[in-house]
Amino acid sequence: MNTPDVLAWREGYIEALDQTALPHQVRTLRIGTVDQLVQAITSLAIRGAPVLGVAGALGVALAVRQGLAEGWDDARLDAEIKRIADARPTAVNLGREVTAVAARIGEGSQAVEAAALAVAESAVAVSHQISARGAAYLRDACGSGPLRVHTHCNTGSLACLGWGTALGVIRALHADGALGHVIVDETRPLLQGARLTCWELDPLGIEHRLACDGAGPFLISQNLADAVVVGADRIAANGDVANKIGTYGLALAARRAGIPFLVAAPESTIDEATGAGGAIPLERRADEEITVPAAPAGTKALNFAFDVTPAELVSAVVTEKRLILNGQWSIDAGP
Amino acid sequence: MNTPDVLAWREGYIEALDQTALPHQVRTLRIGTVDQLVQAITSLAIRGAPVLGVAGALGVALAVRQGLAEGWDDARLDAEIKRIADARPTAVNLGREVTAVAARIGEGSQAVEAAALAVAESAVAVSHQISARGAAYLRDACGSGPLRVHTHCNTGSLACLGWGTALGVIRALHADGALGHVIVDETRPLLQGARLTCWELDPLGIEHRLACDGAGPFLISQNLADAVVVGADRIAANGDVANKIGTYGLALAARRAGIPFLVAAPESTIDEATGAGGAIPLERRADEEITVPAAPAGTKALNFAFDVTPAELVSAVVTEKRLILNGQWSIDAGP
Repeated sequence: MNTPDVLAWREGYIEALDQTALPHQVRTLRIGTVDQLVQAITSLAIRGAPVLGVAGALGVALAVRQGLAEGWDDARLDAEIKRIADARPTAVNLGREVTAVAARIGEGSQAVEAAALAVAESAVAVSHQISARGAAYLRDACGSGPLRVHTHCNTGSLACLGWGTALGVIRALHADGALGHVIVDETRPLLQGARLTCWELDPLGIEHRLACDGAGPFLISQNLADAVVVGADRIAANGDVANKIGTYGLALAARRAGIPFLVAAPESTIDEATGAGGAIPLERRADEEITVPAAPAGTKALNFAFDVTPAELVSAVVTEKRLILNGQWSIDAGP
Repeated sequence: MNTPDVLAWREGYIEALDQTALPHQVRTLRIGTVDQLVQAITSLAIRGAPVLGVAGALGVALAVRQGLAEGWDDARLDAEIKRIADARPTAVNLGREVTAVAARIGEGSQAVEAAALAVAESAVAVSHQISARGAAYLRDACGSGPLRVHTHCNTGSLACLGWGTALGVIRALHADGALGHVIVDETRPLLQGARLTCWELDPLGIEHRLACDGAGPFLISQNLADAVVVGADRIAANGDVANKIGTYGLALAARRAGIPFLVAAPESTIDEATGAGGAIPLERRADEEITVPAAPAGTKALNFAFDVTPAELVSAVVTEKRLILNGQWSIDAGP
């Protein structure tokens, strides 16, 4: 991407592309404090489950630097790191990478920074492995003709570094000459599909059409897609998938249409500690994201940022290490 | 409603509440020509299947007046009336009422106006019959507790005169003290749920929450609704239902959740001449309704304004005359 890095460590601060300003403005944020990082995460300037993992890792390095400069004691450092981990509850990657890198604090700030950078580097490699494996699965499942793919939200470079998860699978199909068109849900209320996915697809020369979220299930029923591919924010031990609100309806439609519903996500998204989807914390965001500016003043909303798709509706989950087919979760999750 | 009439005949012109300006502005349009009427219909200033039927009826009276004033010959009058009938293709009510009233032209302009006014008056009575019958069905199907209802788009006074169709059923439940809350889909791209349904519900004191369209199926899966109630723009002879885009996903979710999916519509919405949903013309509107302002310039869209829900997923259709349960269409449509 001929744009600033999505997320990078700059010797003492984090530089991040402000995803709330895209596609109309390409601007970067200089994040030098935990406060600024938490704000960037909660506002979705930094977003996407894999990128949130990287942000959490770099956030620990940032907190250690800030703590040394400001003379924080251990309790304060722990509290600040916990604020990063808790900035958004649904994506398991954020808390997981924060915990992993924070475990290195006893080794000193250089070890922490090295561990954080390793998380960022790994994200790129993981993304490419997911992309290739997912594309191979779809070509296997759908046949060799140009595949028409329906996707939701943004799961590309902006969300994952590298190629992405679901959008990485789409890029890999395109690279193989096996892609027809892509249908992109706009993804209300924050329009990550309209704003971010279209912005990524256009310079790649990938044919795409934007659709309202409510249209997705119907378009699938009309044979306009050969497969649905989405990312994940957390996958429970039984295979239930939490992802951006709007995913569940696509899974219902894919099942009825008899087409594959593929979830593309890093292993770090799989949360063995959460038994089933009902136990995944689902972030509920401000009513105003939905009610402003169209609804009458005072209107209340139900603004769940994520939904849960039961494992039974998921044809396969593809990670950097494996392809987990429908029904195989009880085996993998074992006793 | 303490507002101007939704749609009324004013001795030679049509007065219409401009539904594109709500909820922020309450303003009326004075429609004195066929051109102005066609523009009001295509822009959705006048909208909702039953109200489109009334607009078509009054439109014929308007065309006759304009034709007399401007000296149109019969061919010109026919052509202008056809423009009204064709202004929006999906709702069968528009073309049907145009045809019915136009058949009276040979009897003179007074007969035409009387016929058009009768269509408007009938719409109010029909709406109340649908509302009462639909509420009775839901109380029967769901039990006596306060019912929580999920709805889509706008199907109230603004769409139907009277109480409405689906929203009329909700009003009737409320009047009976049998309503819990209402979940209202925002209904992208033109936000009739957020703008119009919330504007109607608030002064009625009906507890409601606005949700993104993509969230609807998930909210239903989470036991937040006891029933889904929607209107219809055209019902094929086999019971397939064309309605605002986003309806189909709700029907899938209702079926999986095991709750009733009720369609409330006047008999005039049932189109015996169209055998099945696949033959219903589905209006496709401008890409810009979806792409502006969030998507990158040049983004293309797939903007179907309506979808089709197969009869198999519809628990019941309630009209002013009957309750048609799932599976009864082949009997009713019979030879």
